[in-house]
Amino acid sequence: MSRPRPLSGFPEWRPAEQGVEQAVLDSLRHTFELHGFAPLRTRAVEPLDVLLGKGATDKEIYLLRRLQEEPDVDQVEVSDGLGLHPDLTVPLARYVRQHAGTLAFPYRRYQIQSVWRGERPQEGRYREFVQADIDVVGDGTLAFHHEVEVALVAAEALTRLPIPPIRMRVNNRKAAEGFYAGLGLADAGAVLRVMDKLDKIGADAVRSALRDTAGATDEQADACLRFAGIAAAPGEGMGTLAEQVAALGVEHPLLAEGLNDLARVVDAAQAAVPGALVPDLSIARGLDYYTGTVFEAYLVGHESIGSICSGGRYDELARDGDRVFPGVGVSVGVTRLVGALLARGLIHTTREVPAAVLVAVAAESERGRCTAVAQALRRRGIAVEVSPTSAKFGKQIRYADRRGIPYVWFPGDPDEVKDIRSGDQQQADAQRWQPPAHDRAPRLVAATDDKEHS
Amino acid sequence: MSRPRPLSGFPEWRPAEQGVEQAVLDSLRHTFELHGFAPLRTRAVEPLDVLLGKGATDKEIYLLRRLQEEPDVDQVEVSDGLGLHPDLTVPLARYVRQHAGTLAFPYRRYQIQSVWRGERPQEGRYREFVQADIDVVGDGTLAFHHEVEVALVAAEALTRLPIPPIRMRVNNRKAAEGFYAGLGLADAGAVLRVMDKLDKIGADAVRSALRDTAGATDEQADACLRFAGIAAAPGEGMGTLAEQVAALGVEHPLLAEGLNDLARVVDAAQAAVPGALVPDLSIARGLDYYTGTVFEAYLVGHESIGSICSGGRYDELARDGDRVFPGVGVSVGVTRLVGALLARGLIHTTREVPAAVLVAVAAESERGRCTAVAQALRRRGIAVEVSPTSAKFGKQIRYADRRGIPYVWFPGDPDEVKDIRSGDQQQADAQRWQPPAHDRAPRLVAATDDKEHS
Repeated sequence: MSRPRPLSGFPEWRPAEQGVEQAVLDSLRHTFELHGFAPLRTRAVEPLDVLLGKGATDKEIYLLRRLQEEPDVDQVEVSDGLGLHPDLTVPLARYVRQHAGTLAFPYRRYQIQSVWRGERPQEGRYREFVQADIDVVGDGTLAFHHEVEVALVAAEALTRLPIPPIRMRVNNRKAAEGFYAGLGLADAGAVLRVMDKLDKIGADAVRSALRDTAGATDEQADACLRFAGIAAAPGEGMGTLAEQVAALGVEHPLLAEGLNDLARVVDAAQAAVPGALVPDLSIARGLDYYTGTVFEAYLVGHESIGSICSGGRYDELARDGDRVFPGVGVSVGVTRLVGALLARGLIHTTREVPAAVLVAVAAESERGRCTAVAQALRRRGIAVEVSPTSAKFGKQIRYADRRGIPYVWFPGDPDEVKDIRSGDQQQADAQRWQPPAHDRAPRLVAATDDKEHS
Repeated sequence: MSRPRPLSGFPEWRPAEQGVEQAVLDSLRHTFELHGFAPLRTRAVEPLDVLLGKGATDKEIYLLRRLQEEPDVDQVEVSDGLGLHPDLTVPLARYVRQHAGTLAFPYRRYQIQSVWRGERPQEGRYREFVQADIDVVGDGTLAFHHEVEVALVAAEALTRLPIPPIRMRVNNRKAAEGFYAGLGLADAGAVLRVMDKLDKIGADAVRSALRDTAGATDEQADACLRFAGIAAAPGEGMGTLAEQVAALGVEHPLLAEGLNDLARVVDAAQAAVPGALVPDLSIARGLDYYTGTVFEAYLVGHESIGSICSGGRYDELARDGDRVFPGVGVSVGVTRLVGALLARGLIHTTREVPAAVLVAVAAESERGRCTAVAQALRRRGIAVEVSPTSAKFGKQIRYADRRGIPYVWFPGDPDEVKDIRSGDQQQADAQRWQPPAHDRAPRLVAATDDKEHS
């Protein structure tokens, strides 16, 4: 068997990088739990009728087939088929419907799992990646303040990481829909689908598409384009955005409501994470799917990475007969974020292994005593490794140094512990000694300025 | 779409149960990190040549196929195919070969991920489940003391959980192989494969199979059966095991070495986790694959669950030309363990959500102030939810009670906090107040005696 190589589309981190993703996930989870979101883990597999349901039809799905199965394609009934979930919203909606009888609403869950998309190999896109989602799901109704909440939790979770500053562009479906209605364009969905292509096809093509598919006049099309060009500057909150919209001369109650909702999200964010949220009416992505607030976040100075986090409000996350479950949620693209940070050398951990201490072994006959020292430290929550060999101490110290283990412990009479970075060596008691707080566990560090993550 | 139902073989926990698995995983991971094992997460997918390599051929594999792919089976080349990993050893071996140039050996990693097996649906076996593995991998050589270490870490990780006591049955491949060699049976692998069926087919069938496939005489077959019947009693360490073997009158250096290695593991365990490890020469499972220590763990009084944890030494975890990577590892069957504990009502968490505090909202106009209180508490690491409604306080208290949130906070002048279990209500300052340590986060609790997990 030849040396294994990476699989295109299935990213995997190198040994020195493995701890970075773990630390990022731990940090996101910590923020989610501080805000009272409870853990959910669903199976990775869903039946095809769930995968091909509403909102999921545009996703490329991986189907499962048993290796020992007869290779007769005809027997693979679509209705019996199983596939891997392409996101965490599909399984959430299914889980909510399945357990509606016992869930306590509003249901607040976080979910951190891999998802899979059967993209064409040649596109070089991710086919397996980790997402970290939070959602608040109501039963029948869901208060608007959860839209503010979820956007702020996402911003807080990202700004807690030692990464470049984030910018979260926010829009509101109601504002766009109200504007189109006020213009006299009845099919808001058709307009939104065209406007979503603005970046790709340009203003002229959008203008003709609005005429052809949404029945717009030239004047209506121009108004739509001017509306989509309105955004505030970073750090100024809503700025003059409402005045710029008013200058277009279109009025509609839904437009007013949407701008009001947008201002509530942006104003709350100005207080909590100043400058992070920017209202931007050009954000059309997802507006066809979402029904209220919608947002997507970028790393400032690294916009080419694309959106690292997006979310919003959907009035019908799930439905069971007449019972409707509205939701608001956000998904952090952990693999995209971590992959880009690692590729740019922007992040690392203070060490590659959990151990804060390596207990040196003077001779194999002393290994029992060294293990006892290690257990005494572990009982007080200190991660410890016992040297795998009783080689010369210099070699054992290099073993620690290669892994970034900051302390080497020498059992003796008395014991001594050496900080191998400073060379400082002192007497120590395994029942009492503590490493400084910043050395207890590996920490994420922004590599640009070595500014440490507190 | 009809109400979704569980998928056979793809277990998933109910809302109240979700936190149990998370807490079990956190506890296992904590023990692994205390012992200096570093995190590894591999992609879920491996190429078929890796999946069908040595040691993996008996596993049922799920292959992936893109939904949009042309349904032409002939184009699915086995060599190009991708499948889901059926365990965490196959990806570890591949990862070690792939990164041998940069890994620091001995490489100590833990890995907690889902695995998939394409079992026949009608068998009702798990087709997706979570494993928690640790392994120590050497480059060329791997010291015996790691066999002792890994068995003890596994025992410590399991005994740290609030679950029924565990019993870990330990054997050593060398002892069996040496015994067969001393008897004059040259093909130890053939003998082991037969002995592995003892529980299923019984002594008479084993006797004839040993004659037919391993060339054993009746006397040799009887000796193998007597050897496999030897085990110590729980709590007595090696007891008279060595004497019982000696009484069979077979001598061989490998037998002596194997019994000596077995005694070293068992003696170390008697000191660290008294009574947990029991030497048992009937353990044949895996011996054909493992090369030294082998063990499997059960819950005492719940043996019908089957082995919840197994592992051992393999001299050739991976190979790259002449470079060999020996390993010793253990795999905890988290889904089997958690599923059995939940089904028997043996475990739960102290609450279903992370929040220790619900901040009550007297009126929607007060929500901003309530959010500020919540943020002050969160800044000191306390998980807090703000009431989703400004309903009557009685209703908000019931909201907390239903989720097990122990404290309700009433912003006022001054603020007050109520322990809704005792009814005790006191003045409190959001900048200073702390919940008792045992209320900070949900904890695992053994349901039988409500003995709490410290």
